[in-house]
Amino acid sequence: MAGSTFGNIFKITTWGESHGEGIGVVVDGCPAGLEISEEYIQTYLDRRKPGQSGYTTQRKEDDTVKILSGVFEGRTTGTPISMIVYNKTQRSSDYSEIAGYYRPGHADYTFDEKYGFRDYRGGGRSSGRETIGRVAAGAIACKLLSELGITVAAYAKSIGDVEIDYNNFDIRERDNNPVAMPDMQASKRAEELLKEKMAKKDSVGGIVECVVKNMKTGIGEPVFDKLDACLAKAVMSIGAVKGVEIGAGFKVSEMSGSENNDNFYMENDRVMKRTNNAGGILGGISDGSDIVLRAAFKPTPSIFREQETINRNHENIKVEIKGRHDPIIVPRAVVVVEAMTALTVSDLLLLSMTSTMDRIKKLFID
Amino acid sequence: MAGSTFGNIFKITTWGESHGEGIGVVVDGCPAGLEISEEYIQTYLDRRKPGQSGYTTQRKEDDTVKILSGVFEGRTTGTPISMIVYNKTQRSSDYSEIAGYYRPGHADYTFDEKYGFRDYRGGGRSSGRETIGRVAAGAIACKLLSELGITVAAYAKSIGDVEIDYNNFDIRERDNNPVAMPDMQASKRAEELLKEKMAKKDSVGGIVECVVKNMKTGIGEPVFDKLDACLAKAVMSIGAVKGVEIGAGFKVSEMSGSENNDNFYMENDRVMKRTNNAGGILGGISDGSDIVLRAAFKPTPSIFREQETINRNHENIKVEIKGRHDPIIVPRAVVVVEAMTALTVSDLLLLSMTSTMDRIKKLFID
Amino acid sequence: MAGSTFGNIFKITTWGESHGEGIGVVVDGCPAGLEISEEYIQTYLDRRKPGQSGYTTQRKEDDTVKILSGVFEGRTTGTPISMIVYNKTQRSSDYSEIAGYYRPGHADYTFDEKYGFRDYRGGGRSSGRETIGRVAAGAIACKLLSELGITVAAYAKSIGDVEIDYNNFDIRERDNNPVAMPDMQASKRAEELLKEKMAKKDSVGGIVECVVKNMKTGIGEPVFDKLDACLAKAVMSIGAVKGVEIGAGFKVSEMSGSENNDNFYMENDRVMKRTNNAGGILGGISDGSDIVLRAAFKPTPSIFREQETINRNHENIKVEIKGRHDPIIVPRAVVVVEAMTALTVSDLLLLSMTSTMDRIKKLFID
Amino acid sequence: MAGSTFGNIFKITTWGESHGEGIGVVVDGCPAGLEISEEYIQTYLDRRKPGQSGYTTQRKEDDTVKILSGVFEGRTTGTPISMIVYNKTQRSSDYSEIAGYYRPGHADYTFDEKYGFRDYRGGGRSSGRETIGRVAAGAIACKLLSELGITVAAYAKSIGDVEIDYNNFDIRERDNNPVAMPDMQASKRAEELLKEKMAKKDSVGGIVECVVKNMKTGIGEPVFDKLDACLAKAVMSIGAVKGVEIGAGFKVSEMSGSENNDNFYMENDRVMKRTNNAGGILGGISDGSDIVLRAAFKPTPSIFREQETINRNHENIKVEIKGRHDPIIVPRAVVVVEAMTALTVSDLLLLSMTSTMDRIKKLFID
Repeated sequence: MAGSTFGNIFKITTWGESHGEGIGVVVDGCPAGLEISEEYIQTYLDRRKPGQSGYTTQRKEDDTVKILSGVFEGRTTGTPISMIVYNKTQRSSDYSEIAGYYRPGHADYTFDEKYGFRDYRGGGRSSGRETIGRVAAGAIACKLLSELGITVAAYAKSIGDVEIDYNNFDIRERDNNPVAMPDMQASKRAEELLKEKMAKKDSVGGIVECVVKNMKTGIGEPVFDKLDACLAKAVMSIGAVKGVEIGAGFKVSEMSGSENNDNFYMENDRVMKRTNNAGGILGGISDGSDIVLRAAFKPTPSIFREQETINRNHENIKVEIKGRHDPIIVPRAVVVVEAMTALTVSDLLLLSMTSTMDRIKKLFID
Repeated sequence: MAGSTFGNIFKITTWGESHGEGIGVVVDGCPAGLEISEEYIQTYLDRRKPGQSGYTTQRKEDDTVKILSGVFEGRTTGTPISMIVYNKTQRSSDYSEIAGYYRPGHADYTFDEKYGFRDYRGGGRSSGRETIGRVAAGAIACKLLSELGITVAAYAKSIGDVEIDYNNFDIRERDNNPVAMPDMQASKRAEELLKEKMAKKDSVGGIVECVVKNMKTGIGEPVFDKLDACLAKAVMSIGAVKGVEIGAGFKVSEMSGSENNDNFYMENDRVMKRTNNAGGILGGISDGSDIVLRAAFKPTPSIFREQETINRNHENIKVEIKGRHDPIIVPRAVVVVEAMTALTVSDLLLLSMTSTMDRIKKLFID
Repeated sequence: MAGSTFGNIFKITTWGESHGEGIGVVVDGCPAGLEISEEYIQTYLDRRKPGQSGYTTQRKEDDTVKILSGVFEGRTTGTPISMIVYNKTQRSSDYSEIAGYYRPGHADYTFDEKYGFRDYRGGGRSSGRETIGRVAAGAIACKLLSELGITVAAYAKSIGDVEIDYNNFDIRERDNNPVAMPDMQASKRAEELLKEKMAKKDSVGGIVECVVKNMKTGIGEPVFDKLDACLAKAVMSIGAVKGVEIGAGFKVSEMSGSENNDNFYMENDRVMKRTNNAGGILGGISDGSDIVLRAAFKPTPSIFREQETINRNHENIKVEIKGRHDPIIVPRAVVVVEAMTALTVSDLLLLSMTSTMDRIKKLFID
Repeated sequence: MAGSTFGNIFKITTWGESHGEGIGVVVDGCPAGLEISEEYIQTYLDRRKPGQSGYTTQRKEDDTVKILSGVFEGRTTGTPISMIVYNKTQRSSDYSEIAGYYRPGHADYTFDEKYGFRDYRGGGRSSGRETIGRVAAGAIACKLLSELGITVAAYAKSIGDVEIDYNNFDIRERDNNPVAMPDMQASKRAEELLKEKMAKKDSVGGIVECVVKNMKTGIGEPVFDKLDACLAKAVMSIGAVKGVEIGAGFKVSEMSGSENNDNFYMENDRVMKRTNNAGGILGGISDGSDIVLRAAFKPTPSIFREQETINRNHENIKVEIKGRHDPIIVPRAVVVVEAMTALTVSDLLLLSMTSTMDRIKKLFID
């Protein structure tokens, strides 16, 4: 409840600050017998690594994951999987300046209000590096889901006012451009926009979309632990996210019922829906169609132009933030959204195994 | 975890189906010494009651709350507060027809997939009546917060394409019109829109906005239990909500950092911000400015025109839904959003009491 | 966490005070499709009912259970099962005297210290009537387990210095005598002892033993949620229990390893153990042999002889407690121990369904 | 819920196997501003270190703790405190033999039944080394409590049939003898007993007693999260514990009410009790007198004499366990009992801060 644990059955606990010894995560409740390796986890971590382009951090962060427990002879044992990424380069001196004031758009002020003081080096616990633990754990959740045929894929849907065109959609393109857009033309326009923003010492926001395919039906618990509610928490808990929507999302507010209702029909003995405005979730429970969600990311708060703020002594000051900061959060956040989505779906999928006496008897009596 | 419990310290558990014996809630962890009465709780429940206008259900639901435990001599005792609203009129016959098919936009299909069968009467557990428990509990949370000077107020921000104008904003107007809009002119236009929709046997969606004033700083836990993450779950767990946003919300995706950052400054020895795009939350922790959130509600799925769907035998059929259904969910949902917001803030506020050794010593050593 | 909720997947929340409107429980997470009726639940509640003999309370407590939700057409629906027992006779006047002082051996003092005041009528929340909710929920857990062939049976092992002789053991006798002993001879001696105690205006303690037969293997989670640890909490949470032991229990402290180790051997292709000092649990996980636990109950604290104590003004006083109180807690507590045991086993059994990828694939892929 | 997390507000998650990379713990929810150092934590770990005498393991386990996060400039920051003890000597070869069979009294069989396979090296997750994480976390909980004047001290009460005499009780002696007994004479007799057992290739059990002094009143939650219930779970979760009792414990079963009730009286304006059979807990809530609990530890299951058992192919075999194993678990377990007690008390103490509106107003309004 203290905030660093997520999930109930498939449960993760993250720890670590930007400039401490390392960043880590403990995954508890992962079923035994899942094949996992450091190499596999690393492929997910590499997707959030900085320094891959002119638009993301130039810091050399050699984020290499090490599995410390819970895997034996290549498979999960059912016991906690502890993973660590050691912080290699800890140039705390870079950050000593920000110890004394509150950066606009950052958590410096609120941490001081809550805890009385803070580890100010590189943002401490509120740094984007905190997401390393999420991604390492999320990779395991993705593996678990893939064993059942379920896939989770996120991508940049928009960056500033540049939006992908679904006519050009090609998920393979996502990994071929530095902005994680599955549309080659949009990605080029987005790169132009980022150059403009950088020239103006400014930054920009964007939207990440995530789709879960081949979902099982019946996942999610009525009332408070609805699948969409849990996804909303999961995704909103990512730093910089200010909005989450499912399916048609905010557009439903202007739709009529006859437009918005997804009509059921049968095709080849399968239950189908004419549309998917519900984003694959009805009454908080998956209906078997694709889960679709979107998250709005705010622009990077660390910008290089002069800003007004206050210091720890509560005096008005002007500051110019130094360092290397991306002009956009979205591209590196894509894999974080995937991770949080996969963790949520995995946890509720495991719970759904207990929903009927028939399922219980199938496992315990035969 | 089975889904009917919300919160950790201030924790509620709801139960009940639309056409069972009643709907109820158990509030556990409410501090002792809070003045509470059935009359007070009833004022909140009355705000979600149907039959108040031509645009909400004409069913006579005499939703009278009874406190069964946890209150002694007018004050909470610290033990569980059990509240019940008996279901007076249970005309199950009205609903027997829907037992056999899956209404579009409803949870009939997913409940059957999850549980093998369902209490189909009036939607059973997935009925809007489920929110009675939330509202009764939320009323207590609002009372707790009000003792600290914190207020929570929600209202209809838009209905279909009719949006309030903040120049006309008057929160007192909210309770003077049947659509819960704090803008007399907008409310009239919204009423016209609803008449049109009803004439077309259709419905429409809308947006509820909720504002928490006089917030304390330091509420919310870093990483997974961020205040905004918990609010997102709380509000997304309300049936029909398809999107949640905080502060500038989805607009941040098109903003630049220099626009979006809320600059701090001092005024009369108080920490202030020039703007509140963050919606009162930085790094998941309250910064003392107003919490602002919005929820997008889908249009009522029960519409009277003919719709395509399937039955339990998985055959294509056409249906016309009978009964009395509102053409809009928003007005009655306003108090539900307030309730979920207050419950979330209360729970995290209690937890924040333990954030520093100084606070612990202040309570235990003196 | 506020204390009135137990379990994670199969989760119960109890509420109610001795002299409030009623006592109740909400069971959330019970799998759908389990046959349940009020008549069935009542058979469990009747076993804790007072007034069945000269040795238990003469109060007429007509504890009739009513199911308010979660059961449809005779089967659980998977949604919360709310049950209530209304408090019929609320003669609060009987208890007004104890409002002003702290009864030795009772929770009056600690409730006032914790909450500032208390509902003193009949002990309020700390009354033995609180166990009604446990028993009603436990009856459902017993039903769930019985569907898998697992049985849970408790009985009085000793009352004061009168202990059952396993040579005379007959579980059917348990329900034929007023002290719940499965040994006719011991029960007669126990009745004599109780008469003596009553004559002296005194009371006596005892031990309840509980056995779970036909257990599945693999139930219980390593480290903190060991099956024995969860059972210990479950049983120690019953008012008046001061000790819990599993298998050989406290005797292990004087045993040597060669005596205490239960040797495995094969018989008719089944894994067997020569002894069961472990009480069916190794490393916190069930090994398939009988679960055996014992709970030590203190003597009834309400005794009629004069006692020294203090009042709310913190003055030394002498008191003589009035009313009707059993001289022994054990006989009526037997079914409560069964209930807590069944609830614990059910919850961990459901969780164990998720322990391997093989199990997950068996349910989701076929 | 998967079993490696303990506590709610002050919450710990442990990980690691005997022969993996290391053993660790993440402490989340520790209040900010507590002074902590690796040196301090090490003093607790050193008390569970083997190799301190002829009666405990001769393995050289250089268990040096490293703090990886959550402490800045010598004080806790309120964010997760991650601690690790690297496993230095991993002679897995020693253990390869036990891969193929099930040691009596160990969790080998149940792990295989639960997970399908296991990390057999040195017992894997079920090794006593798992307690390293508990002790490191418990050291922090002890520090938190000590800031409020509360102390937690455990010691060997008995080893086999050798029991301490409270007339000779001197807690300082505990650390002067290899069996952790606070009675010099008893400790000598215990050492003799252990020599005998070793000569016979056998082992023996014992009892650990733990006392919490200067407790605050009002700690513990009614019904399921009673202080004694939580302590019972905490202590029973330690491997090898088969019984837990509070205050007079199992003796209450033979006591009369007039003996067992602890009479209140006033002395120098303080609330006192004539006796402490309740062990400091009434109705699950602390009454301010000493908390007293005892745990029964079984004899070390790894004994060197030939034993009957089965192998993984379910064939009857005879085995002789090799390696270095203590003939007694108790002395090294003393600090583990302290740790679990301190963790439980800390967690419930933090929760108790929210019990009344008066407390809330004291912190938030002034």
